[in-house]
Amino acid sequence: MTRDVVRKARLSGKRTEDIESLLSSMEADRNIASSDVLVDMAHLLMLTRQKVVSEVHAKTLMRELLMMYESGVPADAYDPSFEDIHAGIETILTRKTGGDAGGRLHIGRSRNDEVATCLRIRTRDTVLDQLEALARLREVLLNVASENVTSVMPGFTHLQHAQPVTLAHHLLAYEQIFARDFDRLIEALFRVNYSPLGSAALASTGYPLDREFTAALLGFNGYMGNSMDAVASRDFAEEVLACDTMLITHVSRFCEELIIWSSSFVRFVTLDDRYCSTSSIMPQKKNPDVAEILRSRSGTLLGSFVSAVTIMKGLPMAYNRDMQDLNPHLWRGIIDVRRDLDLLAGMIATAEFNLSRMEEEAGKGGSTTTELADTLVREYNIPFRTAHHIVGRAVKEGALDLATLDRAAEEFHGERLSSLGLTQEKITSALSVTRSLSVRNLPGGPAPEMVSSSLQDRREVLAQDRELVLDKRTKITESIQELITQARRIAQL
Amino acid sequence: MTRDVVRKARLSGKRTEDIESLLSSMEADRNIASSDVLVDMAHLLMLTRQKVVSEVHAKTLMRELLMMYESGVPADAYDPSFEDIHAGIETILTRKTGGDAGGRLHIGRSRNDEVATCLRIRTRDTVLDQLEALARLREVLLNVASENVTSVMPGFTHLQHAQPVTLAHHLLAYEQIFARDFDRLIEALFRVNYSPLGSAALASTGYPLDREFTAALLGFNGYMGNSMDAVASRDFAEEVLACDTMLITHVSRFCEELIIWSSSFVRFVTLDDRYCSTSSIMPQKKNPDVAEILRSRSGTLLGSFVSAVTIMKGLPMAYNRDMQDLNPHLWRGIIDVRRDLDLLAGMIATAEFNLSRMEEEAGKGGSTTTELADTLVREYNIPFRTAHHIVGRAVKEGALDLATLDRAAEEFHGERLSSLGLTQEKITSALSVTRSLSVRNLPGGPAPEMVSSSLQDRREVLAQDRELVLDKRTKITESIQELITQARRIAQL
Amino acid sequence: MTRDVVRKARLSGKRTEDIESLLSSMEADRNIASSDVLVDMAHLLMLTRQKVVSEVHAKTLMRELLMMYESGVPADAYDPSFEDIHAGIETILTRKTGGDAGGRLHIGRSRNDEVATCLRIRTRDTVLDQLEALARLREVLLNVASENVTSVMPGFTHLQHAQPVTLAHHLLAYEQIFARDFDRLIEALFRVNYSPLGSAALASTGYPLDREFTAALLGFNGYMGNSMDAVASRDFAEEVLACDTMLITHVSRFCEELIIWSSSFVRFVTLDDRYCSTSSIMPQKKNPDVAEILRSRSGTLLGSFVSAVTIMKGLPMAYNRDMQDLNPHLWRGIIDVRRDLDLLAGMIATAEFNLSRMEEEAGKGGSTTTELADTLVREYNIPFRTAHHIVGRAVKEGALDLATLDRAAEEFHGERLSSLGLTQEKITSALSVTRSLSVRNLPGGPAPEMVSSSLQDRREVLAQDRELVLDKRTKITESIQELITQARRIAQL
Amino acid sequence: MTRDVVRKARLSGKRTEDIESLLSSMEADRNIASSDVLVDMAHLLMLTRQKVVSEVHAKTLMRELLMMYESGVPADAYDPSFEDIHAGIETILTRKTGGDAGGRLHIGRSRNDEVATCLRIRTRDTVLDQLEALARLREVLLNVASENVTSVMPGFTHLQHAQPVTLAHHLLAYEQIFARDFDRLIEALFRVNYSPLGSAALASTGYPLDREFTAALLGFNGYMGNSMDAVASRDFAEEVLACDTMLITHVSRFCEELIIWSSSFVRFVTLDDRYCSTSSIMPQKKNPDVAEILRSRSGTLLGSFVSAVTIMKGLPMAYNRDMQDLNPHLWRGIIDVRRDLDLLAGMIATAEFNLSRMEEEAGKGGSTTTELADTLVREYNIPFRTAHHIVGRAVKEGALDLATLDRAAEEFHGERLSSLGLTQEKITSALSVTRSLSVRNLPGGPAPEMVSSSLQDRREVLAQDRELVLDKRTKITESIQELITQARRIAQL
Repeated sequence: MTRDVVRKARLSGKRTEDIESLLSSMEADRNIASSDVLVDMAHLLMLTRQKVVSEVHAKTLMRELLMMYESGVPADAYDPSFEDIHAGIETILTRKTGGDAGGRLHIGRSRNDEVATCLRIRTRDTVLDQLEALARLREVLLNVASENVTSVMPGFTHLQHAQPVTLAHHLLAYEQIFARDFDRLIEALFRVNYSPLGSAALASTGYPLDREFTAALLGFNGYMGNSMDAVASRDFAEEVLACDTMLITHVSRFCEELIIWSSSFVRFVTLDDRYCSTSSIMPQKKNPDVAEILRSRSGTLLGSFVSAVTIMKGLPMAYNRDMQDLNPHLWRGIIDVRRDLDLLAGMIATAEFNLSRMEEEAGKGGSTTTELADTLVREYNIPFRTAHHIVGRAVKEGALDLATLDRAAEEFHGERLSSLGLTQEKITSALSVTRSLSVRNLPGGPAPEMVSSSLQDRREVLAQDRELVLDKRTKITESIQELITQARRIAQL
Repeated sequence: MTRDVVRKARLSGKRTEDIESLLSSMEADRNIASSDVLVDMAHLLMLTRQKVVSEVHAKTLMRELLMMYESGVPADAYDPSFEDIHAGIETILTRKTGGDAGGRLHIGRSRNDEVATCLRIRTRDTVLDQLEALARLREVLLNVASENVTSVMPGFTHLQHAQPVTLAHHLLAYEQIFARDFDRLIEALFRVNYSPLGSAALASTGYPLDREFTAALLGFNGYMGNSMDAVASRDFAEEVLACDTMLITHVSRFCEELIIWSSSFVRFVTLDDRYCSTSSIMPQKKNPDVAEILRSRSGTLLGSFVSAVTIMKGLPMAYNRDMQDLNPHLWRGIIDVRRDLDLLAGMIATAEFNLSRMEEEAGKGGSTTTELADTLVREYNIPFRTAHHIVGRAVKEGALDLATLDRAAEEFHGERLSSLGLTQEKITSALSVTRSLSVRNLPGGPAPEMVSSSLQDRREVLAQDRELVLDKRTKITESIQELITQARRIAQL
Repeated sequence: MTRDVVRKARLSGKRTEDIESLLSSMEADRNIASSDVLVDMAHLLMLTRQKVVSEVHAKTLMRELLMMYESGVPADAYDPSFEDIHAGIETILTRKTGGDAGGRLHIGRSRNDEVATCLRIRTRDTVLDQLEALARLREVLLNVASENVTSVMPGFTHLQHAQPVTLAHHLLAYEQIFARDFDRLIEALFRVNYSPLGSAALASTGYPLDREFTAALLGFNGYMGNSMDAVASRDFAEEVLACDTMLITHVSRFCEELIIWSSSFVRFVTLDDRYCSTSSIMPQKKNPDVAEILRSRSGTLLGSFVSAVTIMKGLPMAYNRDMQDLNPHLWRGIIDVRRDLDLLAGMIATAEFNLSRMEEEAGKGGSTTTELADTLVREYNIPFRTAHHIVGRAVKEGALDLATLDRAAEEFHGERLSSLGLTQEKITSALSVTRSLSVRNLPGGPAPEMVSSSLQDRREVLAQDRELVLDKRTKITESIQELITQARRIAQL
Repeated sequence: MTRDVVRKARLSGKRTEDIESLLSSMEADRNIASSDVLVDMAHLLMLTRQKVVSEVHAKTLMRELLMMYESGVPADAYDPSFEDIHAGIETILTRKTGGDAGGRLHIGRSRNDEVATCLRIRTRDTVLDQLEALARLREVLLNVASENVTSVMPGFTHLQHAQPVTLAHHLLAYEQIFARDFDRLIEALFRVNYSPLGSAALASTGYPLDREFTAALLGFNGYMGNSMDAVASRDFAEEVLACDTMLITHVSRFCEELIIWSSSFVRFVTLDDRYCSTSSIMPQKKNPDVAEILRSRSGTLLGSFVSAVTIMKGLPMAYNRDMQDLNPHLWRGIIDVRRDLDLLAGMIATAEFNLSRMEEEAGKGGSTTTELADTLVREYNIPFRTAHHIVGRAVKEGALDLATLDRAAEEFHGERLSSLGLTQEKITSALSVTRSLSVRNLPGGPAPEMVSSSLQDRREVLAQDRELVLDKRTKITESIQELITQARRIAQL
């Protein structure tokens, strides 16, 4: 640790490997190394502009930083004997440029604001990736739905056949769910994208920093308005983890269905081989492994959120080292979500839905008996609850025919339905799957006409959402390009 | 259970007490009983308007419902032998009005959409309460801050004296944090406030319901666009729990500080007796019990979120009974948050801050040595890292005087600082608390001028936020008043 | 709060309803009221025996305590204006006996050790209930298994048909799981059952208390060996919550299977009506509601553990008020577990297993192809991996006949299997379900002979486990009886 | 993925990087690679002994396995295109020995039982490391305690001075806590250490495997008694995570105290420089970073447990791929605990306790007023609650002198204490710290004589616990040595 430029003057004693392993955040810092280079460049540009650092020193330093930007942070910056990537990069820079230049980069800055800025940049970029993947997933759902507006299937409650719906209606339920996940994430993104830079250790600094300038160069919406809040808060991370936990829990539900649907009992869907594995011992097996692991990811995300909150609980102001230990949970939680969404989208897009199996099951399990009870209410003015009892009793007796219904009606209603005009023909018609579907034409209902109309609405919402993400992405990309342009200008002075 | 109107025709067998205890949601349903009456009234008004229920039946039913609205749901509706409050109320109504009227209220409806609507109404009202309490808390923070713009105190990192700040700056950090909590909650409220009513069991219904009409009467933004999503999703509950978990974790941090600050070691604050308890055995004790329990609430909220997500994980579409078991976690989590916020506000408003103790500590622990290092950089053009080493070494040697600094400078910089012009007087000036504060006048910094300006900004933000909540509250109140007016009209026909 | 005997002299200010609601543990204390009466009696007996309290005072107090023991703690002791049940009971006693007697009960005691003692008594009794219920559940599993040693069914991995097993083998897997849950709980019980009494606030007391005497009277194994640990630790509660979380998660797995098995796709089981509900709208429905809510209980337990640990995290020694807030999570978590276990046992005992459906499915999905591959290895000395490839390819081609296998063998092994002696007859024999089962006669395997032998072993283990619980229960009951006997003797002096 | 020997015959389609990244467990499998080699060797020895594999094939394979055992698993076995390390090692072996030998290692085995066996071996070894570290930590606590039996310090409740204790008493509280953690872990270890090997995919196998033989060679207590349970259960992992969560939460409490004690307000302890960091900006800082990160580890462990349980919740029998995703949480949770314990032990062993500061604070904050109240009870027969009120009132008035106490006694007791014989001298004596300590000589109390006796008991318990761990370690080591010996014998045939 003697090489660590931060530590050497103040503290004595050689650290053991155990201590270094505990204190080092190097493994997690791989996720922010390239952000750190951007932050260094923006800070240096600003210091130069504010005449705190001379152009000579700036040029020397900027050349090295640009090299890192273009070729990547060198491997020796990740030496685990450094406490973190910031110490690693600063030490490398100092080694290359000499202490006179290298020792000036950290002016008016602390690792506390530096790391918070890097965390926010990487989180922002990751959330943008997730938003784009969510849009792709929603498009797949809309596409498959639009091909299946009349594909009937049983709707389930309690995993029991309940009432007929269509595959399109089922998929649109998920599209709306993922649209809310999208909304949550884009609102979280707004709060993530503020710059802590300039807050230093906790109380800002006496140097004349231009916080607005660095915030703009790094693509932030603006800077954080209180220096203690800026270094001490991690709700931006907790919020994204919470959003992703809810999102991935929605994925887990869809995957549970894919797993059940692809079982040999149900056979509603055949997943593409790419998303399946076989067994090391049972040669016949084709297992829905991708769906299973996606289902399990709910546990991973929830655990990450729990870790983050538990770590922050009861921490006094401002920065505490505990907060470093939150970062691995953040990355572990959020980085893979983009991949998960694309996998789900791919799995759905390539799945073969067995429409004849779905249709075959749609009318089973008494899924249209509600419609029969409703018919009794509408046609013969029987109170709903009574009608429910009559039909329920007939189900229990195992036969939905006129004779059985008549017996039940005598018990619960005091007169036979046939004497009110019910015929076997009317019963059969009331129990038809197609009819059950087509009368369910309320807004939000499964009737094909409503689903078609809903599909159109959802396509418009998706198009607007895509626009929003594109806007944000473009603004950030342009800011970073401007940053690089200015950095190159300094380097070539 | 024989009295349960829902169950009797379809299933046989007497239930044991254990089964009833497991299945009954009655305890948790106390939180939605009054919402359920509103939902019944809105549904009945709509059925009547759509000519599905006759005015005669409507009048009979509405009179009973208005009685419940005015005098409260009668105690026997909570009989634990009912599975839930919906069965309880329907049974009472049927008992009072006879099956011919009572049996019609549930037309075109299922408990699945009914309960989801009730949950959203109660959650919405609870979040509104929280938003109002957050506004009160933020106002207290701004008020106390505005009296303490120049009250210096030590800022801490790692619970060690770091750099001087002011009490106002410290409090403003929390105000910004709670403002973000406010933003998250108001955005969550938007997603909560959609009506599932009309979705029935999962596939809507064949009756010609007017979903827009009931949504408007109940104060919703609109209705949910997919009937399966409407009954199967609980992300609205998870989201509010997540927001409240983050919010209460912020409360836990403030309370940790109040606990430490009121310890006899620190004595920065004296809490009002009302917020403290004594010991049953140690007569001298005055313990910060309210702050301690508020700190612990972080565990309660986090546990609620974990329960909710774990319950939803991997559930197939649409409704599953597991979801009933989520509700107690929702209420347990969110209902008391309003109280917690008011208690924190009250505790801060009535606390005596010991400004002289704070001032006494502000300069301790070398809290201005950063400023000394910065002075070396600014005045003598020493690289920052070198200045940091020089001052760090002097701290280690225990004396921040010219001689010690000179020795350290020889080691790290190769020449003595006195030969560059440093004098003992300049050292003393650089180490002054007031100076350290006043030079930290960046945006977001603790310098009194910046804090004053920040205070003004924050007051404006708060005023706007208040306006937002008031608007939402007013709209909802007016909708419910319209609902009652229409209900009375029907009852008096 | 003026009536609270503990608070009145030291602290001023009237408390608001919010404060009382936050500080009061009354709701949760309902779970320990009767334990508190026992603790009071034991403490009083000991104080009298040690001559700290006179027999006259003891007699007066003991009469009131015995009345509470026999008729229950009076309702006014639960008045929410008391902070807790200890203050409630002491106030009632003082009101009835006058301050001269009532004011002596708390000698040498603090609420800190008192509440810890009550918590441990109630937790111990609850764990004993759970252990007895676990024994009942295991017995049901063994009984149903012993009737189904030859009832073949498909074993699943990834919810896909894997290899044939028997219903008995499947149930025995759960019996072993629940036996480990039993072991964990009985070991936890040992750590729970130590007495904190005598530790007072945190540093014991100067009165000559006999800790061994009270510990014995209350049925404890002994007393806790460090007074600070005794009042500051709650790992006994966390441990039971952790054990119950694992246990209920095992229940959730079984219930997931019951839900899937009772779906109309699978029909392996018909649950008794008592454990099912119907729909408020769909008269045909019979939903496995009990299994669903039991599945959801995993979320409740996990949330309780999370709450408990998060509350304890980072608390300094010794008692902190946060710990009061842990108690509701403890009760919420553990009290209902006995019920859940009995419900699962009842559901299994009354379920009708559809053995012909199980048998019908046992050979489907290529569940015996592993045996075919193994046959190739054993009979023709083909390397296992090669055999796996040959059979896997034939599965992919959709036919497990000699011609297809031959083609695959040529590709992967370079020669045809028929030339090695394989015949269609041998293929058919290798693919027989009965054969596949009977050759799996390793220890722990599903072959009927092994399962029968395993059943016998498990019955012996269960008998021993029952003996263990009975012993513990008896010892505790006898201690409490001795306590009551001594208390009556004092009261009648 | 074409190189993957398991997959190639059954499934088609090239996998994308996303799919491979999701499905591959390679990163987590680094933790079990060396265990896998042991399992391979034991399985091969057994297959040879049972004549399932010929000695010629065995020799070829064993040579390669011994090479891996001695030089480590080669880097190319970790190629991420393999799904897991088992596929990696088998592929390497097959590549080196040819398919005729390599293809036979997996006879009678599935990855399901193989991975479960590896997980248990690595978990077992990790728990043993933790147990040894716990013993070291407990020894440090006993050693430091034995030097501080008379070092008085304030005991705290609610972070307020409560009553005097000694540093030894405080440390012994933790020793007892960590001893319970030890007990929990050693009991968990017993359940971990059973062999799943021979259970194959879920239903064992038709090969004549000797499960007892492999279990013994690998150092297990025995084999698991049900093949489905063996591959489908992960409660062994959950249990160790739960134990470690409780353990690390205890560490978090101690560290919170070290952080507070080393603050400049308290100065009870000076931590060794090695366990501290400085600031990158504030040269004076010496921060207790190791203690902070150890405090945060509670969040990491709790999150791991949550992830594990949530993943397992509701999984049907037997193996599901979700379970693979549990493993990273297991390693993430348990591997670093040994390090954490050693760091805490090191931090305590090297800390300088500032005994004079502790003594200075011991009598502050009215920490002996309980003793004064107790004196009133004992000497003047005043009811305890009345004495508590009298002293409480005097504290409130700010003076514990005769005049004030007399006034309070008149109010609450009706007569003055001086008239009962109380003098100022007696008051002073009752308030003495030394006296307060020495009268607290109950078992478990802080009086030096009791602490000395307690110390002796604890040393004996620790010695026994050490013996237990040593026994287990030795047995396992000897088994593995025997395994290697037999493996070498085969290789040299």
